[in-house]
Amino acid sequence: MARIDLSTFSCSVARTLDVVGDKWTLLVLRDAFYGVRRFDEFQADLGIARNVLTDRLTRLVEEGVLDKVAYEQRPPRFEYRLTAKGRDLFPVILAMTRWGDRWTWDGEPRVDLIHTDCGQAMHAEPVCSSCGGELHPRNVRATPLPDGVEEALARRRAAGQ
Amino acid sequence: MARIDLSTFSCSVARTLDVVGDKWTLLVLRDAFYGVRRFDEFQADLGIARNVLTDRLTRLVEEGVLDKVAYEQRPPRFEYRLTAKGRDLFPVILAMTRWGDRWTWDGEPRVDLIHTDCGQAMHAEPVCSSCGGELHPRNVRATPLPDGVEEALARRRAAGQ
Repeated sequence: MARIDLSTFSCSVARTLDVVGDKWTLLVLRDAFYGVRRFDEFQADLGIARNVLTDRLTRLVEEGVLDKVAYEQRPPRFEYRLTAKGRDLFPVILAMTRWGDRWTWDGEPRVDLIHTDCGQAMHAEPVCSSCGGELHPRNVRATPLPDGVEEALARRRAAGQ
Repeated sequence: MARIDLSTFSCSVARTLDVVGDKWTLLVLRDAFYGVRRFDEFQADLGIARNVLTDRLTRLVEEGVLDKVAYEQRPPRFEYRLTAKGRDLFPVILAMTRWGDRWTWDGEPRVDLIHTDCGQAMHAEPVCSSCGGELHPRNVRATPLPDGVEEALARRRAAGQ
């Protein structure tokens, strides 16, 4: 399959996926949120091939999601730190954690997330930035819908289905 | 690169990515949240190759994220509807939308999300399920950390870095 250039899509989900829509990329970012910063640390934790890790880190630096910073001069050694753009991916990681906790375990998930402000084990819930109310598929509407979707839904309504 | 079986990872992010960690899969789900249900509707909106779409829909049905339901008997025709497990991915799509809106456009993003309960254009913000407070990388702690991460961070602290 040819690689599709999602960056040209008019949808923010597609454009996000163009940058981070890859399993290893998202696992690298998860590790970065844990505090992992160095090549060998990512490599040891993820068991990822070094060339693949190099590729993902390079792309994330190019995209401005990670900063590559020297922490030693002789020999030069670098670490990778989340930028503001990178830290802003935290809600994506939180949402994936919640779904995985809920739907991919037979027993209890092995990791708790603690909200240090209140000290409780918790999960993330999305709320409206305007009123603080809860969000679910039935009370959120995207406008305008993509043309193709608008037409398909209109056709289906017209057919009484 | 060999496909790694992320479903064996002890991390909920990895396990989530094992199910939905693919660009097309997440775009199919975005369309499902828009109300798209039928093969030709997904195909027309996404411009995706039919065999790739078949593959992604089949996997999502196997995983229990979509239900395949007959809406016509002669000839048999099917549509794909989000299950409870599928609807529960909404926070992932909301989080990606927010990040894409904020970081991937030079001008304004073209789609608004309206919270129909309050009528305002908004974005999703993650809050603590326990106290309702805001969540960001500095006030959320995962415990226990993966062994490899714990050791790496301990080594770095011991080295005074």
